[in-house]
Amino acid sequence: MDCVFCQIIAGEIPTDIHYRDEEVIAFADINPVAPTHLLIIPRQHIPSLAHLPDDETPLIGHMVKIANQLARDEGISESGYRLVISSGQQGGQLIPHLHLHLIGGRQIEATLG
Amino acid sequence: MDCVFCQIIAGEIPTDIHYRDEEVIAFADINPVAPTHLLIIPRQHIPSLAHLPDDETPLIGHMVKIANQLARDEGISESGYRLVISSGQQGGQLIPHLHLHLIGGRQIEATLG
Repeated sequence: MDCVFCQIIAGEIPTDIHYRDEEVIAFADINPVAPTHLLIIPRQHIPSLAHLPDDETPLIGHMVKIANQLARDEGISESGYRLVISSGQQGGQLIPHLHLHLIGGRQIEATLG
Repeated sequence: MDCVFCQIIAGEIPTDIHYRDEEVIAFADINPVAPTHLLIIPRQHIPSLAHLPDDETPLIGHMVKIANQLARDEGISESGYRLVISSGQQGGQLIPHLHLHLIGGRQIEATLG
């Protein structure tokens, strides 16, 4: 198991966990780009969004639901936030385990990458 | 009805529609930031992601499923792509109707905004 996110899920790396349930966990990004920068990831090792079967997209709905809840917990739901999923090399994905970024707490640039 | 996306849904503005079903439509962004830049939006007028009730997050799963299908149609599923939802002022949301960006076809910067 050489996936760093799978190691976080397994509790093998000390991590600032903000949420966990049977399907997903959420934790602070180790290189935050904003005052709030959390990652929501599935426990299942799915290498990227492109690898997610069409019939498993409800998992993304659940990940977004948790992101919205965390945005409220963080007090940024009304001020504003951004969700980002990068898939594959040209998408700028760095860790090959599906993850959803939640960023907020400052003015996010209009640029999309 | 002063929402430009609702006007697109109603067919009142000529638009390059890539997909439509009972829940969502997808069309080319008028100010593309990459060779592929599509917007997937719900037909229902939801001002932002923060306004989406928790029990309606399956809609987001459907929007992401369509985004994945469009990424395959555009030939960028393997090369890579990024999905972005900006919510609210600090999130950089410009049009107050929930929308999911699909961007790809070039190297996307690691920056998240």
